[in-house]
Amino acid sequence: MAPQNKIKVGILGATGTVGQRFIQLLADHPYFVIHALGASSRSAGQPYAKVTRWKLNTPIPGHIQEMVVQECKPDAPGFADCGVVFSGLDHDVAGEIEFAFRAAELIVFSNAKNYRRDPVVPLMVPLVNPHHLPVVKHQQTTLSPPTKKGYIVTNANCSTTGLVVPLAALEKAFGPIETVLVTTLQAISGSGYPGVPSLDIIDNVVPYIGSEEEKIEWETSKILGGVNADEQGFDYHASEPMKISATCTRVPVIDGHTGCVSVKFKRSPAPSVEEVKEAFRSYTCEAQTLGVPSAPKQAVILHEAQDRPQPRLDRDLENGAAVSVGRVRECNVLDIKFVCLIDNVRLGAATSSIMNAEIAVEKGYIV
Amino acid sequence: MAPQNKIKVGILGATGTVGQRFIQLLADHPYFVIHALGASSRSAGQPYAKVTRWKLNTPIPGHIQEMVVQECKPDAPGFADCGVVFSGLDHDVAGEIEFAFRAAELIVFSNAKNYRRDPVVPLMVPLVNPHHLPVVKHQQTTLSPPTKKGYIVTNANCSTTGLVVPLAALEKAFGPIETVLVTTLQAISGSGYPGVPSLDIIDNVVPYIGSEEEKIEWETSKILGGVNADEQGFDYHASEPMKISATCTRVPVIDGHTGCVSVKFKRSPAPSVEEVKEAFRSYTCEAQTLGVPSAPKQAVILHEAQDRPQPRLDRDLENGAAVSVGRVRECNVLDIKFVCLIDNVRLGAATSSIMNAEIAVEKGYIV
Amino acid sequence: MAPQNKIKVGILGATGTVGQRFIQLLADHPYFVIHALGASSRSAGQPYAKVTRWKLNTPIPGHIQEMVVQECKPDAPGFADCGVVFSGLDHDVAGEIEFAFRAAELIVFSNAKNYRRDPVVPLMVPLVNPHHLPVVKHQQTTLSPPTKKGYIVTNANCSTTGLVVPLAALEKAFGPIETVLVTTLQAISGSGYPGVPSLDIIDNVVPYIGSEEEKIEWETSKILGGVNADEQGFDYHASEPMKISATCTRVPVIDGHTGCVSVKFKRSPAPSVEEVKEAFRSYTCEAQTLGVPSAPKQAVILHEAQDRPQPRLDRDLENGAAVSVGRVRECNVLDIKFVCLIDNVRLGAATSSIMNAEIAVEKGYIV
Amino acid sequence: MAPQNKIKVGILGATGTVGQRFIQLLADHPYFVIHALGASSRSAGQPYAKVTRWKLNTPIPGHIQEMVVQECKPDAPGFADCGVVFSGLDHDVAGEIEFAFRAAELIVFSNAKNYRRDPVVPLMVPLVNPHHLPVVKHQQTTLSPPTKKGYIVTNANCSTTGLVVPLAALEKAFGPIETVLVTTLQAISGSGYPGVPSLDIIDNVVPYIGSEEEKIEWETSKILGGVNADEQGFDYHASEPMKISATCTRVPVIDGHTGCVSVKFKRSPAPSVEEVKEAFRSYTCEAQTLGVPSAPKQAVILHEAQDRPQPRLDRDLENGAAVSVGRVRECNVLDIKFVCLIDNVRLGAATSSIMNAEIAVEKGYIV
Repeated sequence: MAPQNKIKVGILGATGTVGQRFIQLLADHPYFVIHALGASSRSAGQPYAKVTRWKLNTPIPGHIQEMVVQECKPDAPGFADCGVVFSGLDHDVAGEIEFAFRAAELIVFSNAKNYRRDPVVPLMVPLVNPHHLPVVKHQQTTLSPPTKKGYIVTNANCSTTGLVVPLAALEKAFGPIETVLVTTLQAISGSGYPGVPSLDIIDNVVPYIGSEEEKIEWETSKILGGVNADEQGFDYHASEPMKISATCTRVPVIDGHTGCVSVKFKRSPAPSVEEVKEAFRSYTCEAQTLGVPSAPKQAVILHEAQDRPQPRLDRDLENGAAVSVGRVRECNVLDIKFVCLIDNVRLGAATSSIMNAEIAVEKGYIV
Repeated sequence: MAPQNKIKVGILGATGTVGQRFIQLLADHPYFVIHALGASSRSAGQPYAKVTRWKLNTPIPGHIQEMVVQECKPDAPGFADCGVVFSGLDHDVAGEIEFAFRAAELIVFSNAKNYRRDPVVPLMVPLVNPHHLPVVKHQQTTLSPPTKKGYIVTNANCSTTGLVVPLAALEKAFGPIETVLVTTLQAISGSGYPGVPSLDIIDNVVPYIGSEEEKIEWETSKILGGVNADEQGFDYHASEPMKISATCTRVPVIDGHTGCVSVKFKRSPAPSVEEVKEAFRSYTCEAQTLGVPSAPKQAVILHEAQDRPQPRLDRDLENGAAVSVGRVRECNVLDIKFVCLIDNVRLGAATSSIMNAEIAVEKGYIV
Repeated sequence: MAPQNKIKVGILGATGTVGQRFIQLLADHPYFVIHALGASSRSAGQPYAKVTRWKLNTPIPGHIQEMVVQECKPDAPGFADCGVVFSGLDHDVAGEIEFAFRAAELIVFSNAKNYRRDPVVPLMVPLVNPHHLPVVKHQQTTLSPPTKKGYIVTNANCSTTGLVVPLAALEKAFGPIETVLVTTLQAISGSGYPGVPSLDIIDNVVPYIGSEEEKIEWETSKILGGVNADEQGFDYHASEPMKISATCTRVPVIDGHTGCVSVKFKRSPAPSVEEVKEAFRSYTCEAQTLGVPSAPKQAVILHEAQDRPQPRLDRDLENGAAVSVGRVRECNVLDIKFVCLIDNVRLGAATSSIMNAEIAVEKGYIV
Repeated sequence: MAPQNKIKVGILGATGTVGQRFIQLLADHPYFVIHALGASSRSAGQPYAKVTRWKLNTPIPGHIQEMVVQECKPDAPGFADCGVVFSGLDHDVAGEIEFAFRAAELIVFSNAKNYRRDPVVPLMVPLVNPHHLPVVKHQQTTLSPPTKKGYIVTNANCSTTGLVVPLAALEKAFGPIETVLVTTLQAISGSGYPGVPSLDIIDNVVPYIGSEEEKIEWETSKILGGVNADEQGFDYHASEPMKISATCTRVPVIDGHTGCVSVKFKRSPAPSVEEVKEAFRSYTCEAQTLGVPSAPKQAVILHEAQDRPQPRLDRDLENGAAVSVGRVRECNVLDIKFVCLIDNVRLGAATSSIMNAEIAVEKGYIV
């Protein structure tokens, strides 16, 4: 339930693509109130509206327009009062800055990739593995410098998130998945701004996104795996290793990553198409039972129309906080195949960070 | 080598998307000369330029503009003199019309799907299986009515063609492939005109193309299989059954179908990435050794740049008559994965029919 | 203020592009409640969700999904109880059907073009000329058959609407405009579904839209003109004839028509750029003073950024019920030029009909 | 007629968008042979194929791939031997570099804007004003430093070029034009690479292109004007001043700028629509009578189909070296309106520079 007083939050990388989404989603939030905006030193000291090339189709919230942007330093005005800091920083600067904020006893929910592979940093998809959160306690004592309050939680890569939510539903219902083959068709917004040149993508497909396939192949096992008994680390799905092969492509779509997925279960016989559909339909997760404000009513939306999900028509369902699946059918090579869709800028990025923080509030990790 | 006198050819469905390509590609052809144009009764009796919504970026060839369109009947003026008839008809009318032309002792090279599964009709991809052509002899005696001269040869579905060319190169080098998993990203032109409504595809992906997956899964085995010893039918790759699983999507690309492919070989150990690349590079086929005019210099074009092939940049290579492949690398689930690209309206449609006919000329099946 | 009991409304052409918008916008409306859905006889008798290819990015409202579709006949179940009927019919059937509904004493707010030029039918843009509404009284007595209650009000063509709102603001501030030159860049949704084939518009511009230029050139004078003293007809801006020249093009944009406009005022000297900006900013209209629910807070939104308005970023402002203008500057040939943008499916279509009906309620023309 | 020995040419900015077109168009040219490639110091010393992100749909010509790129300095290897240097440099460096090449007695044909307004530099559209070329003689003596051989000729901005060719045809037939109102819909390639971010232009229009409107409004008068009697400068259409008002927009089109144009003639009565069409059809220019290799057969291509010209279908006509016009009709405000289309990267850029140089060869200005 909502905290008695709203928690002040800061946003790092506030002028960028993910930062703009943070602002849009947090402008009128029941738990959080935007208190500090951080960006590059070039923008610091100026009103937000003046230094930002705002690219969303809702206006900059009125009270944010004149808010003065700060440098991304823990001692810049405002950050010290923040109960949470959200980071939409580019990876080339995120490592150092997020480290400094944690060291300054701030709690960081980051969309950047820098700490995703750290053995004491939760890689947390809010609809999948909030049970990874307790590891931050060990992080506080073991990561240098030790902290009393500060820690870092990251969310996953956008295309990984779209994949692991339906996989989690399947593993919950049917036990371990052995192999996953996925081809993604990813939106241009996944690459930020200016991002993909229009000359590269209009009337075209680019069948390569740098290091994206490795992210999917690596992150999935950490997310779907458990927490060690001592709550000091993760098991990376190690007792039932999962083989994952990804091919990532860029297509001329603004928002919404589509994935074409084939899976093979450890269990034999494999579940039927109908059982799989039912598993998707009935999947519930901790974010929902906790009732946090950004949780979708339906975590996995099952489409029965044979030509769905489609990015333009389905990305806005549940305010972009759910994963759509469709075309569930048998695979001639593995067991089952389906198509999934995620709003890469909401559940794939900003919404995940925010819902992770909401969960942390409810579970007592932010006080 | 070129016939002494050019062979007169007719085009069925001449006003449609594939028919327009036939005209563009045959306007100045060393073997063939356009002699008759067939379309619906609505267009019959009128000049070609008047009844056609021409959609190519080269003008209608001068001598074709005023050519009078005929009905698609073997006894309509001009068809009786034709040595070959090319069919770009829609499948809803192709079955009956092509049957009538064959019965009237005409040789039909068809892009339609109607006869692809017929056990005595070659399903012929010119860069792969011209050795299926002799079965037309048996077709002449066994299919009703028996003919002396008339027969039907079909080419494959556009996305199948883009897949089987690289697979043929791999089987030639390494023996049977056991399993294939493919996800396609297909161009709008594959659906003809008016085809895909713009409201359905701009800023969107449609993860379904009616019966396309079944075509890929079925046609591949017929094409990559052999001819029975008696030359009276096909073996459908039966001694080494191939499991194929396809997912087909539509993307906002004008021309050029992309495929993301994973394969597993029967042979163990599987060939290395370098060996696979070399197999693509060195693949040669009968169309090339016969030296027919539409044959590409390189049947499979291997791209080393990590972000290629791309439809807009690579579909025009070899005048659209080759298949591009790239991103050859190991697959964590099967053996090898790669990306392939075909110009769906040229090698995927009109160029295949034409090259098939050129091969038939060279091999003495058109006299 | 809201009627005491919600008024039952019917929707004609309910399965089409505009019909879907009517449903989306009326699903939870303070004045109106959807009571009857009309479509072709092919759909009649079946649940709405079954016969509709829904193309909006919000789901079909729950209570509408199972509503049984009727034929578009005044005596089909439900219509007789309706206080208002909204028509999103295609013009090829709208004439006869709307006539029949009016004759059956129903009040029709139509988006179709059929009666726009009728001398006793208001052509009403809700942000511009609600003072045309009283002419329906004369319509009731003079149009055959005479009616007691039934009448027809049409709204304008979508691109006309985007133009006349800023022109009305200018005439209100500075008196008559003498000449208008406008080039439009129109969205594909303006042509309905299936509408524009994707092969015609991706990577392309089509510099022609059938009869669109004539609509802009004709409708503008009726809308910006006044009502005759006897309230029996319109003056068509006749005392100060306005010369209008339009060029209409189609561009690959989903929603949102852009117009590049140059105007010359009768008054000399012409107003300055600053005065024109102020006229846009301060424009208010009767829909706002009446306080009807669909009225925007700001009827004309003035953008100061030099690269705005843009369809994708600005079409959703004011829930699509306002017109954006920007780039106000001097014209070397006429007096002033600017760029305008309208959401063609909301204020350009469904929202206009609905707001017109809301105004009619407030002014006592619907009881 | 072709020079006896091919003239060696250098290309400045060889790795950029325009530079790539120069290479494509000059790879097999009857007058010129590529001898030196200049780019930034970062690329210098390396093979062309290695440092270039080639974005054309034909491969890099074989003999160019390994050619070593030089710095853009007149004394870098190769340039001293060049009879012509083509510049595709960005304006931020073009000024200084082109100046240095001229000072080193090289003849520069530039696509950059830097010297277009110089009173002794021809601003030359090859299909319009080759009679401006003699002013280079005065340039050699009057511009500092004086040169014996070196001079600079610029071509026009791409959208200006698309406009002035049809205007030249009209002035040739009907005498001076008084006013021109033009709205352009410009392709993304006009902005180079990476140029327009895809997030800014997919499903969008940007109604502003920095300083483009000023270029059209200024350049047109210089190009359509004459040369002073002493051949020492230009008359800028001064005796019959032309008022030009331009609005420039960016649309999601890859290549091809569309213009919607209204004109008013000085002569009264104005020519009829039929007379204007005939003037377009019959327009011939000096590039054609000289018979230079890049000259189109038809300088202005008149389209009669009501929905043409369209960028995707018509930009390749005449190998991109002509201007298409269509929709010639009366204007309610000025006299006549029409739509024009230019391939902005060919006649709008590289082809203009090359054709200008071909003309200079034929007229004895390159020896």
